[in-house]
Amino acid sequence: MKPTRLTKLSESLRTSGLSALALNAGPSLVYLTGLHFHLSERPVVAIFTADGEPVIILPELEMLKVAGLPMRAFPYPENPAEWEGVFRRAIQSLGLDGERIGVEPRAMRLLEFRYIETAAEATSRRPGFPDASDAVSRLRVRKDADEIAAMRKAVKVAQSALEATLPFIKIGMSEKEIAGELVVQLLRHGSQSEMPFAPIVSAGPNSANPHAVPSERRLQPGDLLVMDWGACVDGYISDLTRTFAVGEADEEWRKIHQVVLEANAAGRAAAKPGVPCADVDRAARQAIEKAGYGVYFTHRTGHGIGMEGHEEPYMRGDNMQPLEPGMAFTVEPGIYLPGCNGARIEDNVVITEDGAECLSDMARELRVVG
Amino acid sequence: MKPTRLTKLSESLRTSGLSALALNAGPSLVYLTGLHFHLSERPVVAIFTADGEPVIILPELEMLKVAGLPMRAFPYPENPAEWEGVFRRAIQSLGLDGERIGVEPRAMRLLEFRYIETAAEATSRRPGFPDASDAVSRLRVRKDADEIAAMRKAVKVAQSALEATLPFIKIGMSEKEIAGELVVQLLRHGSQSEMPFAPIVSAGPNSANPHAVPSERRLQPGDLLVMDWGACVDGYISDLTRTFAVGEADEEWRKIHQVVLEANAAGRAAAKPGVPCADVDRAARQAIEKAGYGVYFTHRTGHGIGMEGHEEPYMRGDNMQPLEPGMAFTVEPGIYLPGCNGARIEDNVVITEDGAECLSDMARELRVVG
Repeated sequence: MKPTRLTKLSESLRTSGLSALALNAGPSLVYLTGLHFHLSERPVVAIFTADGEPVIILPELEMLKVAGLPMRAFPYPENPAEWEGVFRRAIQSLGLDGERIGVEPRAMRLLEFRYIETAAEATSRRPGFPDASDAVSRLRVRKDADEIAAMRKAVKVAQSALEATLPFIKIGMSEKEIAGELVVQLLRHGSQSEMPFAPIVSAGPNSANPHAVPSERRLQPGDLLVMDWGACVDGYISDLTRTFAVGEADEEWRKIHQVVLEANAAGRAAAKPGVPCADVDRAARQAIEKAGYGVYFTHRTGHGIGMEGHEEPYMRGDNMQPLEPGMAFTVEPGIYLPGCNGARIEDNVVITEDGAECLSDMARELRVVG
Repeated sequence: MKPTRLTKLSESLRTSGLSALALNAGPSLVYLTGLHFHLSERPVVAIFTADGEPVIILPELEMLKVAGLPMRAFPYPENPAEWEGVFRRAIQSLGLDGERIGVEPRAMRLLEFRYIETAAEATSRRPGFPDASDAVSRLRVRKDADEIAAMRKAVKVAQSALEATLPFIKIGMSEKEIAGELVVQLLRHGSQSEMPFAPIVSAGPNSANPHAVPSERRLQPGDLLVMDWGACVDGYISDLTRTFAVGEADEEWRKIHQVVLEANAAGRAAAKPGVPCADVDRAARQAIEKAGYGVYFTHRTGHGIGMEGHEEPYMRGDNMQPLEPGMAFTVEPGIYLPGCNGARIEDNVVITEDGAECLSDMARELRVVG
């Protein structure tokens, strides 16, 4: 359990006008309690209240995980016919009559939600399940020193793993082969085995798809090669992208890479406390628009990182949320020319008291591989 | 797209009395369309109807993935304020007035569901969202020859990776170190980098927790060492467990291992077409009960495997579903003595026309490591 975080959660729930928060297995539960569960066909739900001990509903076979924790456990047996009753007793025990239970829509599945809803309808007169994402993300968005230290390590592991992979890359290799080697190197260099996301290795026309999945396509001279990868250390992740030239790159590909490099620098330079997220997006986007490629930069400039690959704050043109010390996020502008090539350069930035620190320092210039 | 599977889905929806099925990113969507998306803060939803072309609602930046597919795409821009309107137009286009949209509660998040719900309420008189898991799992549960071939490969990769890891294991190593090496070997032997689940490596008291997470605890002589691991090949997984003795094992640990071995054999022997899942559970459980350890076998005997680590059919005492050719599942009895040691032996079985084939053939006897 994380007592300080639980105290802060109580305050945050009161600020949001919520008396309770229901979480299923996932990063927010780990953040508050240290408890890891798989998302499976067996629902696991913890309910936190603004005052008082949390409850957790979980399979009997998981009881060892919560032994000794200050949570009231409501275990259920293997037969699903019993589960509804256990949920009802757990929610009844909270005495939440007429009060609302907040949920995280991004994490909560209908599986868990329908058990909570049925139990609350049986025990409360006016159940309601408002989006309580803010009540948790308000805590998670400001990283403490330990969290930043873990992310710094995750960046170092990712960078050294990529450097170890580069000599392996040859013309004629498939994207999948390169992705496999990169994952091996991430583990060898100290990443946890639960990766934040599978690396993107995409070349030539595939690099023009920002969310490509590594394919059997083989590297050809003239390709741009986009590698988007990260490591996980102590539960915190890094998320980086570098773009390489396979053999020699044509002038247009060198040009789009240079424009992206300037956009990345402009985005990073705009990041400091008090500045709205939108300004980071605007700074990067203007550099690309000025060069005439605005229509080919098809996504926002970045997203928060921490325990998850995508979390708050989002570097989006419409997001006026001001940056605060401890916020950590990506700056990752790109240009994608459909059917041809794409380029993206992504760094990880943390807002400090008086500016920003870029955790990643690997060379951003267009290097030749193969 | 998988035309045969889509045709079968239409029939299955009619059988279930559903006119439509909404899926978010995940295995069922991959099964039906081959489309891979990350689960992120951007909702992706495909809606299939009993007749007619499916629709898909997705971020503009993912449009390349659906180019040329027989689906009507409803892309949305980066600004979330626009998303609700796009969902409404997509659902309106299906003309589902008064008809119900089935969902998979185990996969669907509130994020996607609330967009679907709001859109359906705006366009339909009596929206309803029944559990349609059966309509899809009815198809997915009977594996075809290609799927079984992929699982057979995934078992071979897992077995050879574990054999390559065993010589590395020494007394004094931590569970985490061993898990890291095992993952490297899985990749080296051909597993996809998106693993079905992180391996469980648990020894001594930790092995008495069936769902332990690898810890910093170091192997000690007298420990039982439980390794529960799998590989992923062509999108299909394997899921195996073997238990080892660290140094020499005391008589009681050898005994529980032997009982589990007999239970595993009994469970496998019970598996054939027409037999209810409950019989596989009962066969394994009786072997453990007879030896006096029934109370320490705290979970069901197995679960289905395929694209996911846990899917239908479940080998549970209350599951009267009859086994059918093509069904693939684990047989994994265990005995867990809290605070002491645990043992589990898990194999992967496929039902054939006249019996069952065990895909895994690695030695099950108690081998000594360290």
